[in-house]
Amino acid sequence: MERHLDQELKELNKGILKMGAYAEEAIFKSVEALKNRDKELARSVIDNDNNIDKLELTVDERCIDLIARYQPMAKDLRFITTGMKINSELERIADIAVDIAQRTLEIADKPLLKPLVDIPKLAAVAQNMVKVAIDSFVKGDIELAKKVMLSDPEADNLRNLIQKELVEDYMLKDASTAPRAVQLLLIARFLERICDHTTNIAEDVIYMVQAEVVRHHPEKLK
Amino acid sequence: MERHLDQELKELNKGILKMGAYAEEAIFKSVEALKNRDKELARSVIDNDNNIDKLELTVDERCIDLIARYQPMAKDLRFITTGMKINSELERIADIAVDIAQRTLEIADKPLLKPLVDIPKLAAVAQNMVKVAIDSFVKGDIELAKKVMLSDPEADNLRNLIQKELVEDYMLKDASTAPRAVQLLLIARFLERICDHTTNIAEDVIYMVQAEVVRHHPEKLK
Repeated sequence: MERHLDQELKELNKGILKMGAYAEEAIFKSVEALKNRDKELARSVIDNDNNIDKLELTVDERCIDLIARYQPMAKDLRFITTGMKINSELERIADIAVDIAQRTLEIADKPLLKPLVDIPKLAAVAQNMVKVAIDSFVKGDIELAKKVMLSDPEADNLRNLIQKELVEDYMLKDASTAPRAVQLLLIARFLERICDHTTNIAEDVIYMVQAEVVRHHPEKLK
Repeated sequence: MERHLDQELKELNKGILKMGAYAEEAIFKSVEALKNRDKELARSVIDNDNNIDKLELTVDERCIDLIARYQPMAKDLRFITTGMKINSELERIADIAVDIAQRTLEIADKPLLKPLVDIPKLAAVAQNMVKVAIDSFVKGDIELAKKVMLSDPEADNLRNLIQKELVEDYMLKDASTAPRAVQLLLIARFLERICDHTTNIAEDVIYMVQAEVVRHHPEKLK
């Protein structure tokens, strides 16, 4: 027979999945808006952030309420506290998408520098990392979480390449590109921060799963 | 008679205070290193981050352990979950100080651009915000938390001024300054992110205190 708490935990899972979907969508739309210089789309990312903030609060409240009502032990407690952390990471990821949308609005009327260097590529890495990280939490799958962590150096590397190209091929050669290049550089940084938040999620999942393994099978720690 | 849990909560407070002190110190040292082009000091910030990470883990474990052992209700539970959040914000603030130290190492051998525009000023704002935010948590003082939130626009404003000056007075006028100006621009962004994390702490404190007030005195919500 399923415990009542299990039902509640499934609901919590759904809330986190929805937060994840919101975050992914916000990243996608903010970068699409940048690529197509679509101010309306950029504005929709900014406007929708309110809903993500509300959902974050709802999920957070649900977690505290579950702890208070069920006084869950070990595994369940750790699942809930990890859920709280992931919820907060996702809200920040969505906030960063808003930052990207705001930069996009600032440069939407100016000619693009080259086809945005490798920003769309970095955005694709970030989006995929978010997807896999949420999956790793929902499934409690440590291998998926490790996959996320292995993508982070790729993201760092892309960010460095983008920054190098913007400084050396644009700013240094033609000073007049600086204002636009700076905006793109910030957007690359924002995307890399999304990857960092996603790495935090993966670390939380590994910690959640391994603490369990360790608790019951200390020999498996290494 | 004092409850055993109260003793434990005091210990938790101490842990958070120590994290706060570490974070403040990391910000201070990273900016001192930048001002004085002191590579050794910059490296010490990077090396010490390990200790902050360890303390974060200890505090986090303590929180989960407190919830599991005492099954605290309402006010105490919220204090503990807020403590977990603040702990994680402080760890990130320290991480950003590491970012600043790393940028500092990259530009330490090159001539400084002007006396660092307004970066030291922004750093002072950030450091003070961290101090007041930790204070607001420990005292559960909503007025202090509001003070922190009121400082955030000042930080945003300084960041914008720094960015504008770097782009308009340096990069656009003399393209050869771009690599250094970009590093300073990133440092200004890092400092502003510290202020954002600090604002998160203040919001958490307000939420922690007001949810209590609301719970017991719904008429006081507004």
